[in-house]
Amino acid sequence: MIPNDLFLKACRKERTERTPVWLMRQAGRYLPSYRILREKAGSFLKLCKTPELSAEATLQPVREIGFDAAIIFSDILLPLEAMGIPLSFEEGEGPRLEPVREEKDIERLSIPDPEEALPFLMKSISLVRSELNGSVPLIGFAGAPFTLACYAIEGGSSKDHRKTLRLLYSEPGLFDSLLDKITAATIPYLRAQVRAGADAIQLFESWGGILNSRTYRQFALPCVRRIFSSLKDEGVPMIFYLNGSSHLLREMAASGADVLSIDGRLPLGEAFQRTSGEFALQGNLEPSALFAPADFLRKEAASIVSGAPRRGHVFNLGHGVLPGTPVDSVKLLVDSVREFSRSET
Amino acid sequence: MIPNDLFLKACRKERTERTPVWLMRQAGRYLPSYRILREKAGSFLKLCKTPELSAEATLQPVREIGFDAAIIFSDILLPLEAMGIPLSFEEGEGPRLEPVREEKDIERLSIPDPEEALPFLMKSISLVRSELNGSVPLIGFAGAPFTLACYAIEGGSSKDHRKTLRLLYSEPGLFDSLLDKITAATIPYLRAQVRAGADAIQLFESWGGILNSRTYRQFALPCVRRIFSSLKDEGVPMIFYLNGSSHLLREMAASGADVLSIDGRLPLGEAFQRTSGEFALQGNLEPSALFAPADFLRKEAASIVSGAPRRGHVFNLGHGVLPGTPVDSVKLLVDSVREFSRSET
Repeated sequence: MIPNDLFLKACRKERTERTPVWLMRQAGRYLPSYRILREKAGSFLKLCKTPELSAEATLQPVREIGFDAAIIFSDILLPLEAMGIPLSFEEGEGPRLEPVREEKDIERLSIPDPEEALPFLMKSISLVRSELNGSVPLIGFAGAPFTLACYAIEGGSSKDHRKTLRLLYSEPGLFDSLLDKITAATIPYLRAQVRAGADAIQLFESWGGILNSRTYRQFALPCVRRIFSSLKDEGVPMIFYLNGSSHLLREMAASGADVLSIDGRLPLGEAFQRTSGEFALQGNLEPSALFAPADFLRKEAASIVSGAPRRGHVFNLGHGVLPGTPVDSVKLLVDSVREFSRSET
Repeated sequence: MIPNDLFLKACRKERTERTPVWLMRQAGRYLPSYRILREKAGSFLKLCKTPELSAEATLQPVREIGFDAAIIFSDILLPLEAMGIPLSFEEGEGPRLEPVREEKDIERLSIPDPEEALPFLMKSISLVRSELNGSVPLIGFAGAPFTLACYAIEGGSSKDHRKTLRLLYSEPGLFDSLLDKITAATIPYLRAQVRAGADAIQLFESWGGILNSRTYRQFALPCVRRIFSSLKDEGVPMIFYLNGSSHLLREMAASGADVLSIDGRLPLGEAFQRTSGEFALQGNLEPSALFAPADFLRKEAASIVSGAPRRGHVFNLGHGVLPGTPVDSVKLLVDSVREFSRSET
């Protein structure tokens, strides 16, 4: 029995007395308590890989801000490391991976058993579940295969993903074989999270929006569909986040997800229309709006709540919380969403 | 009299015997002759600021590939430098600007007389015009104010434009004052290019797609409208390129431009429908497709030509030519567009 099941109900498009709210990257640098924990861990990877610490990072925002869902503290790149791609995080910089661009690099990649290769994550999920004691649901997650392939090919994050697109067009077969391996590793990885206690799962397609619809359908979408269809029997809500999806709503609708998570560029009302009201929607305040004065922030929150479907809306940002975001603004946002959505229903 | 006026006719939505083609960044690193010229100049900025050299860089692709239009070789950031923002290009890196983030930084910016501050550009335009001797039209250009503001605030290019968005939301008045100054500098800058001999102008809004439609309408669009409406009396075709515009077609249609230049993510047929067929369209092959095998490239070109309106299509990429693009692929593309569009009409 989960006392606060607003999030799960909204995912299922059931009626809720108010709109549930959680934020992508709700655990992280903007929280003073997180920064202390991060200091204590010594490194970001250490924090991710120490179950007690990552469980604590997961719980901090739920306790301090009062979100309606927890999301396990981890990083989308850890499964790539488990597949055999060396990964590091330099202080103050983005992630670095040993680039995967040739057939021999791809052939070397393994499909790990997640329980063996990432035991810390499953342990952290169990710890969080027992600590939450059913108070709010817990979300597990993974990066979508195309997005992970971008990171693997570029060797980190990239402004324009030139190397990725170049490989995709020049060696589509090779590109597909990389996607295939990542997909095969992602399915047991997410299943293990559900079995360890995740109440819902989210797939993060951060870079899919750089592709046109034809290319997205050819390369990226089949992987996403394979993941969601394989995991359907687990019976948990499945959320698909696709950044920059204004031209890919048909593809999102064909993904097999229950909930479509929309970035800040497309009004939710329009996303609802264009997907025939079939899906629950998650989103979609622009993260930078949390730097705006209180009045403006409240107006933006109200506008998103009133433009969203009444049933089946999970309030979130269109992208992750930015470092330096004022904690008071996050609290104000959560309070505002509650207030407005209660008066709407 | 311009013998090859296909480009200008297509901009005006007049019937043409085939589709004209030019490519954003058609002058540049992928051309061996450009690399020799760049070496000779010593630095990128020197190349831009030496009329004989920048004229030569402009003419190279027209001579070697046979494009239907020339675009003056320059950089969108030069007007910012002329406004008083120190600019440099480090070898192998992007541009660096002294960041503009505070009121005093903005107050210090000047609105330069382009003839005085950027005489090399006007001189280069005259040289190109006389060298082309009317064989193909010449395009002048500028960055759109929001995009230039992004560069000024970030101090260069950026993956996520955090500082820009943060300033926009936290100090909208300050942000507007920066946009206002850039807009005021851009109008005489483009006018001077037309008077020096540019037959058409293009405004590059490389970063506008990060904004949602409401924010784009509030901050960025008024600047673009002011520029196009001020320059309308010059009587040359005006092209508006907005990267990532799938959610901003209404705003593009309200910009005052004659030609909308669409990136590779939105099929031209859809852009045509959504803008009621009112505008000539430019685009929109994904630049990475030039790395694909010949068969695939020809198919992509054919698909874009057949999906575009019959009148009022200027073939282009959805973004600039990438460094390392095979020259033979560019030639094949140009030939394919000519062949397919001739058989279509």
